[in-house]
Amino acid sequence: MPMSNLLLSELNDAGVLRLTLNDAKRRNALSEAMLEQLGERFAEASDDPNVRVIVLAANGPAFCAGHNLKEMTAGRADADAGKAYFSKIMTLCSGVMQSMVHCSKPVIAEVTGIATAAGCQLVASCDLAIAADTAQFSTPGVHIGLFCSTPMVALSRNVANKHAMEMLLTGDMTSAHRAAEIGLINHAVSPESLSETTMAMAHKIASKSSMTLATGKRAFYAQREMTLAEAYEYASQVMVENMLAQDAVEGISAFIEKRPPNWS
Amino acid sequence: MPMSNLLLSELNDAGVLRLTLNDAKRRNALSEAMLEQLGERFAEASDDPNVRVIVLAANGPAFCAGHNLKEMTAGRADADAGKAYFSKIMTLCSGVMQSMVHCSKPVIAEVTGIATAAGCQLVASCDLAIAADTAQFSTPGVHIGLFCSTPMVALSRNVANKHAMEMLLTGDMTSAHRAAEIGLINHAVSPESLSETTMAMAHKIASKSSMTLATGKRAFYAQREMTLAEAYEYASQVMVENMLAQDAVEGISAFIEKRPPNWS
Amino acid sequence: MPMSNLLLSELNDAGVLRLTLNDAKRRNALSEAMLEQLGERFAEASDDPNVRVIVLAANGPAFCAGHNLKEMTAGRADADAGKAYFSKIMTLCSGVMQSMVHCSKPVIAEVTGIATAAGCQLVASCDLAIAADTAQFSTPGVHIGLFCSTPMVALSRNVANKHAMEMLLTGDMTSAHRAAEIGLINHAVSPESLSETTMAMAHKIASKSSMTLATGKRAFYAQREMTLAEAYEYASQVMVENMLAQDAVEGISAFIEKRPPNWS
Repeated sequence: MPMSNLLLSELNDAGVLRLTLNDAKRRNALSEAMLEQLGERFAEASDDPNVRVIVLAANGPAFCAGHNLKEMTAGRADADAGKAYFSKIMTLCSGVMQSMVHCSKPVIAEVTGIATAAGCQLVASCDLAIAADTAQFSTPGVHIGLFCSTPMVALSRNVANKHAMEMLLTGDMTSAHRAAEIGLINHAVSPESLSETTMAMAHKIASKSSMTLATGKRAFYAQREMTLAEAYEYASQVMVENMLAQDAVEGISAFIEKRPPNWS
Repeated sequence: MPMSNLLLSELNDAGVLRLTLNDAKRRNALSEAMLEQLGERFAEASDDPNVRVIVLAANGPAFCAGHNLKEMTAGRADADAGKAYFSKIMTLCSGVMQSMVHCSKPVIAEVTGIATAAGCQLVASCDLAIAADTAQFSTPGVHIGLFCSTPMVALSRNVANKHAMEMLLTGDMTSAHRAAEIGLINHAVSPESLSETTMAMAHKIASKSSMTLATGKRAFYAQREMTLAEAYEYASQVMVENMLAQDAVEGISAFIEKRPPNWS
Repeated sequence: MPMSNLLLSELNDAGVLRLTLNDAKRRNALSEAMLEQLGERFAEASDDPNVRVIVLAANGPAFCAGHNLKEMTAGRADADAGKAYFSKIMTLCSGVMQSMVHCSKPVIAEVTGIATAAGCQLVASCDLAIAADTAQFSTPGVHIGLFCSTPMVALSRNVANKHAMEMLLTGDMTSAHRAAEIGLINHAVSPESLSETTMAMAHKIASKSSMTLATGKRAFYAQREMTLAEAYEYASQVMVENMLAQDAVEGISAFIEKRPPNWS
């Protein structure tokens, strides 16, 4: 399969970019090639004014089964037993996950089937996630002697400590229903309505001002790492700048005049 | 309406201070005058030994609709297009929200109807919140080009990231039932029993030692911003000081002697 | 009762160490002697290669009622009114709680009955917790003038702020069902199946590589206190080291070869 087919990309007129993991045979494993393409697409989409919202979807029954273990294991043949290669892959993967957080456009996961290990991390790294109620989530590295230490960075920033620990220490599958209860995903819906529900949410968000979404998303993750006093000082400045921007002038005027806004 | 009627204040014999937002016509908007009065009342109540617990309630169908957009928009006529005025309002508002967190008395929101934008932030900034099951919550700034960046400081310290992001990116209303599920409020009850439920909780807390409540509330928010090791060192010192205080001497003696305590 | 009987210790062939609080008459209070023994057992178990998982259980109807108030009150007779003694107990107790977090083996609470004050903190400090659905949890210090400031360090790292505040400010009992909803425990089960459920989870985890569990547990709590960027840099290094360890070589090979792993 040519590399360019690993990750399908489709932008609609409303500015919704669907990125579709397209390596069903390997359960959409995050191979080196897949990670590189994901990183490139998120970087491009972050800067592309035509993209307003990103949906991360997948072809095939699995959403994403995490790293490509055969590819990684091949690295053991290197003179350093794979150390440099593993380091490269981990840096690449952690970079992709952070590029989703830093992407100026909201990212919504559309989770069709199992999302395991770095695949679960992918879901946790999205701003929002909708899953088929048949989907399942796990961080099963503990089964193979390799704790899901990087997935847990994203997982533990979404769910309570004991819920994260149960997934990490047992490696057990978590149902979509339970994932919604503990905050790993927003909603579990029927498989038939999954794409429709995700795209409806994407279109709703795409109808907002891109400047406003970018401002808010950046501020959200920035202030989460501050003390309350720092966060308020920072967010107050963000609000003042936002008030002065054209889209807020227009949006507030439209609201007061009871007409739809016309974003710049 | 005279400024002094914007915010009603009523202290009962049990030490429960009811502060009631009283600008139903403007859906209890956080105008500059309302914010100033809130800030003053919380500062006074924090120091007033007769106040043991504060309930923040509202008159009219809406709890609070956030900032007064007409008042803010008027600031655009200034030479700096409103920059200094917006900055003043944001500093004032963030100060009020933090004065609730720093207030030495527990603050309980009694949420009758919609709590949106900075109104939702008001609920999130209370220590506890009870809502009518008909109440609704949202951070709808995204609809008007102005992301709810300061409300999200309080919101994201109450609910999981994906739940906060769904409210912030869609601007959709969240039902009281859902707000209770995600941790934004403690309980949703019938509108008929709302005031009774809130006041019962307020009276229960007002029966405790004010010194103990003040000690614990201050320590709670302080230790949340520390590492585990720092938090334990700090909280251990707080416990030692608390053990030496008269109300703990009395409270523990009363407990051992099976009689009601007599707080200082 | 001889000190050595305060805390029973039993290691089975699968490497599951059951530590059983055995002072039912005093509702398993965390007396100075009990705290010292807990601290010693967790330190020993952390270093003992035969221990793979720890279950913290209790004899009698109560799980643990917190500090021994009579013992603490006796300290008031000291020349300094107890200051040095309270400080010693708080340092000891906070040290025990942190020794559970730092213990290289996963710790599971098996909660039979009430877990109050420092007893609730004990549950919150475990990595995982299963409770009988008849168990109850509270931080009732507020009733006796002594806010549960050290328990709240652990509690507030498990549950949402408003849920923690409700327990701390009211001192009310929280049912096991509610504790599971808010994330204080993993699951509430029937009293008849409690021990079986906990031991099944313990055995499942004990079947994993101890090196992997120790690596992951340490990394979990370390990265929780870092920014996202720091956490990813740190966890990526942890993953690389883990990949190079013998148990990951074996575990991944076994997975690819579809055979059970043979941990070192």
